[in-house]
Amino acid sequence: MFTDKLIQAIEQKKSPVVAGLDPKIEYVPQLIRAQAGGGLEGAAAAIWEYNRQLIDALCDVVPAVKPQLAYYEMYGLPGIAAFYKTVAYAREKGLLVIADGKRNDIGSTAEAYASAFLGHTTLPEGNVVSLGADALTVNGYLGTDGVKPFVDCCKANNKGIFILVKTSNKSSGDLQDMFLQDGKKVYELMASYVDSWGADSIGEKGYSAVGAVVGATYPEEAYTLRKLMKRAFFLVPGYGTQGGSAADAVAGFDENGRGAIVNASRSIICAYKSSKWQQYGEAGFAEAARAEAMAMAKDINEALEARS
Amino acid sequence: MFTDKLIQAIEQKKSPVVAGLDPKIEYVPQLIRAQAGGGLEGAAAAIWEYNRQLIDALCDVVPAVKPQLAYYEMYGLPGIAAFYKTVAYAREKGLLVIADGKRNDIGSTAEAYASAFLGHTTLPEGNVVSLGADALTVNGYLGTDGVKPFVDCCKANNKGIFILVKTSNKSSGDLQDMFLQDGKKVYELMASYVDSWGADSIGEKGYSAVGAVVGATYPEEAYTLRKLMKRAFFLVPGYGTQGGSAADAVAGFDENGRGAIVNASRSIICAYKSSKWQQYGEAGFAEAARAEAMAMAKDINEALEARS
Repeated sequence: MFTDKLIQAIEQKKSPVVAGLDPKIEYVPQLIRAQAGGGLEGAAAAIWEYNRQLIDALCDVVPAVKPQLAYYEMYGLPGIAAFYKTVAYAREKGLLVIADGKRNDIGSTAEAYASAFLGHTTLPEGNVVSLGADALTVNGYLGTDGVKPFVDCCKANNKGIFILVKTSNKSSGDLQDMFLQDGKKVYELMASYVDSWGADSIGEKGYSAVGAVVGATYPEEAYTLRKLMKRAFFLVPGYGTQGGSAADAVAGFDENGRGAIVNASRSIICAYKSSKWQQYGEAGFAEAARAEAMAMAKDINEALEARS
Repeated sequence: MFTDKLIQAIEQKKSPVVAGLDPKIEYVPQLIRAQAGGGLEGAAAAIWEYNRQLIDALCDVVPAVKPQLAYYEMYGLPGIAAFYKTVAYAREKGLLVIADGKRNDIGSTAEAYASAFLGHTTLPEGNVVSLGADALTVNGYLGTDGVKPFVDCCKANNKGIFILVKTSNKSSGDLQDMFLQDGKKVYELMASYVDSWGADSIGEKGYSAVGAVVGATYPEEAYTLRKLMKRAFFLVPGYGTQGGSAADAVAGFDENGRGAIVNASRSIICAYKSSKWQQYGEAGFAEAARAEAMAMAKDINEALEARS
């Protein structure tokens, strides 16, 4: 079951950090780009090599990676091929893979997305796994019948989803913070749906297959949301580059210091560009990412201890 | 400008019908499947051949096609390759292509999605078009800064987006119909955002690059929403298989019988399976699709005339 595996990996690696693999070609060190050739094919080849080395350096220090689909779709079909290779390679290296696609649609189409990312596709000759990620981010604007096919797929295949509840961006309040007539905010209503959608997929360690995305940039909201979704695992973006501190990022963890993972993308994969890790140089980009991921885990773990 | 081109195509073809290209392998006639081989590669090859023949038969009777990403992602990387080929071929045949991906994310990632689907990707050697669709469906749950990159991309490249406002599925009310404290419903708030997001991208014919998805299954809501989004082009799903009639589907058209396109997927692409078109047989699947698309245009056009 996904959240059981996730908790086990977090404890084994002593790290609640997810490395966001959101590669733009300009992040890839020149020495890799020079060998990869031009065009979308070249960019995708460079991105794949960059990811491969990052995964090698990160696989024993983080429990999970979160490739963001947009950064692969941006490089066309070769980019999407690099995404598929990245997911397969990360899983081979023992990492859990959260595909960040924020997919959403009505029932029959939601079923197709669930098959694509988490389940299997039925062909005349039998079932075939298309991507086989461990979890997927999902947008719940369409309501229950748009989410249920994902939940059913999670239950059948031991996978997980994270529903957008309170996102980390500045404008997230435009809709999510609006008050409803009963005095609750829209994101609180979404939280109550997440709680009910996940009610019958609780793992051995108490967490449901239906998790929630709750930004580190809104710690007070995260604190409230933890109470509304006691069994939901939180995926916490917004730490680092977006402005969330470690103290902010741990607001949604439960009283035992569990129940959430904190994502960082650019600060990890571009660590070699930071003055903090300049000793690694461009050639040491993967080691710099590893050092940053370990420093971040320490930062989060210390904030968790300080809180308790 | 996208909505100008769309209106021109609707008038030229006398059809406000969008053919949804949502191919499952089981929809593809046996004679095509038999030639295509097995596995995801075979399924994708069969789907591409099916689409190619559908596009040939539909290209002079509908203004646009709407391939739904989930049905291609479901067939893995070969499926996504079939999606790319389908988009390119449809555009070659003079059709406008609405990529139905319901993409959404925070600012920088929304920019990447916009590049992927509508704009171009910046490589060290210059800009390259990745997919180059004419329009994309977008989920606005993340608020203004998650949508603005799409709008900017539309303005720079003469493209369009359709924001989910009131979706056609049964559970769409779970969130979208909730009353806010000012007495408006959530979908009405979304409509007011759509109106303001699109305010500075109005084409010569009075319609904005920022359109709205409004289900044919909710005609009263569509009637209200037309007043709230006077300049938004509506993309109307839910006609036919989902239960919306022609009279329902035209509720969101403006007083001049313009401003909306009605999608049908299965009823067009699987028309050959319907007793209504059985004279075509399996081998005549593309002609059956064409006949159904023309019958649907007639149905919608008559409902528009009956209304006025």
